[in-house]
Amino acid sequence: VWLASGDDAAITVPPGATATSVDAMVEGVHFRRDAAPLSSIGRKALTTALSDLAAMGAAPGEAYVQLGVPDDLDEAGCAELARGLAEVAADHSVAVLGGDVTRAPTLTLALTVVGHAASPAELVTRSGARPGDVVAVTGELGGAAAGLLLGQRSELARDLDPLVVERLRLRQLEPEARLQEGQALARSGATAMIDLSDGLGGDAGHVAEASGVEVVIELERVPLQEGVADVAGAAGVDVHELAAERGEDYELLVTLPDERVQGALHAVAVTGCALTPIGAVGEGAGAVLIEPDGSKRKPAGFDQLQS
Amino acid sequence: VWLASGDDAAITVPPGATATSVDAMVEGVHFRRDAAPLSSIGRKALTTALSDLAAMGAAPGEAYVQLGVPDDLDEAGCAELARGLAEVAADHSVAVLGGDVTRAPTLTLALTVVGHAASPAELVTRSGARPGDVVAVTGELGGAAAGLLLGQRSELARDLDPLVVERLRLRQLEPEARLQEGQALARSGATAMIDLSDGLGGDAGHVAEASGVEVVIELERVPLQEGVADVAGAAGVDVHELAAERGEDYELLVTLPDERVQGALHAVAVTGCALTPIGAVGEGAGAVLIEPDGSKRKPAGFDQLQS
Repeated sequence: VWLASGDDAAITVPPGATATSVDAMVEGVHFRRDAAPLSSIGRKALTTALSDLAAMGAAPGEAYVQLGVPDDLDEAGCAELARGLAEVAADHSVAVLGGDVTRAPTLTLALTVVGHAASPAELVTRSGARPGDVVAVTGELGGAAAGLLLGQRSELARDLDPLVVERLRLRQLEPEARLQEGQALARSGATAMIDLSDGLGGDAGHVAEASGVEVVIELERVPLQEGVADVAGAAGVDVHELAAERGEDYELLVTLPDERVQGALHAVAVTGCALTPIGAVGEGAGAVLIEPDGSKRKPAGFDQLQS
Repeated sequence: VWLASGDDAAITVPPGATATSVDAMVEGVHFRRDAAPLSSIGRKALTTALSDLAAMGAAPGEAYVQLGVPDDLDEAGCAELARGLAEVAADHSVAVLGGDVTRAPTLTLALTVVGHAASPAELVTRSGARPGDVVAVTGELGGAAAGLLLGQRSELARDLDPLVVERLRLRQLEPEARLQEGQALARSGATAMIDLSDGLGGDAGHVAEASGVEVVIELERVPLQEGVADVAGAAGVDVHELAAERGEDYELLVTLPDERVQGALHAVAVTGCALTPIGAVGEGAGAVLIEPDGSKRKPAGFDQLQS
């Protein structure tokens, strides 16, 4: 970084390949100010943008922020928002180099993030999955969807440990970007990778489509965050639907050659996160979800995205 | 460019230094859909973003677009908008590598543009102006402000050549980014450069502040677009106020050592554009405008920006 914000543009000298992603969050579409503190909104905006770099296996580098500020957000509110952004930037050693602040009818955060790798070959796209590869997922799923349900229907929390409830709510409000895990998986031979923003089924479908393969996921093997089954039960929702069809967990879905799986499990464990094999890549097209009773179906989310 | 849009991030291998700038346009704040065709809005969004790269002397490279689409903008409208963006991208050989489309209460375009240079030293910031430098401006000023007045008060066009009126309106609706001129000026030894988005006085103030110098501009020497004086006269507005205090001309204000001016005049002329010396850099602080009668004043626009 040669020149940060304050001039017409920021100047950097990137060391090799860059991965660049843009991501916007709009009030009323992606969040409500009455349902999330401003610092959480700031955290989530940068986290979800960085999650795309995690899914490339890139090392996070720079961020640029465009803020649309409505009339009813004062300077203290903007500072709260900026604090959330700055915390996430500091956590991941990201330099916030540029910004553009304008008035807007509703709060809008548009983030551009740039990550780095020594060469393009070290970055992982969605298109390299091959038949025979193992499909795995980082961390645990369903927490964001359960947290959202808890926020909408507080009675669902009645029989749950308050700490478990708090973790589910935080999962939805303040997800984590799996940046270290993504880099570890890239070094471990990942053939394709995507972050779970649309939901496991839908995002598996994206990998399947980009790679020209079938991605088969056994729902029984999908790791669930603590309390997800309880919330699903209390809400009368199928737990696998909650974990596989709803988004925003921001875990990584990865495909790996069979012989690289042990190494990847170890490399991800070193970062403090779990990696769980949940399926396999086959010849064919699209994502297939296998229910615990052995029946197969296409993910609903993927169909919606295609239509 | 290794990988364009469709994955989690775009992959590039930048050749040396990069200049990155972000810029947003929000309906109701920066434009009105009833006053500009959608293709013009698309053109202007990318042009004004690229103008920041012009002001660095960078060669334009990539663009990333975040689009917030309101419910009343249909697919045909989005295609019009995209056509305007694509035209400007093609004009300047810019690769549109990424995008993010979301719903939004009003039409919002957030652009990220990346330019390139062999090294950081070849890029021109706002902070290098030195006492003794000549101050010059590309092209002609006042057209955007006159075009805006004509759009608001059509009676001002009554005594004007319709072609001149059309050029003034286009100047406001579809400005040009001085990318070739910016690169020519960077090669010609420009010490500081800025694009005129806020207005000549205000932007001269930005250079003065960043460089720690005084930037003196003789208003009588400022080149005016044809018809600007007529519109100012018809509207009862001082022509120098129109040309120096209002923004959106997107010409380049540049400072150059005296001995480099002849070379710069030639280098810019080769691009088909004029370069006009309009003042000098001195010891001191801030921008100073000299009226034709010799009186001096601070630009009003600059004061507004400081308050």
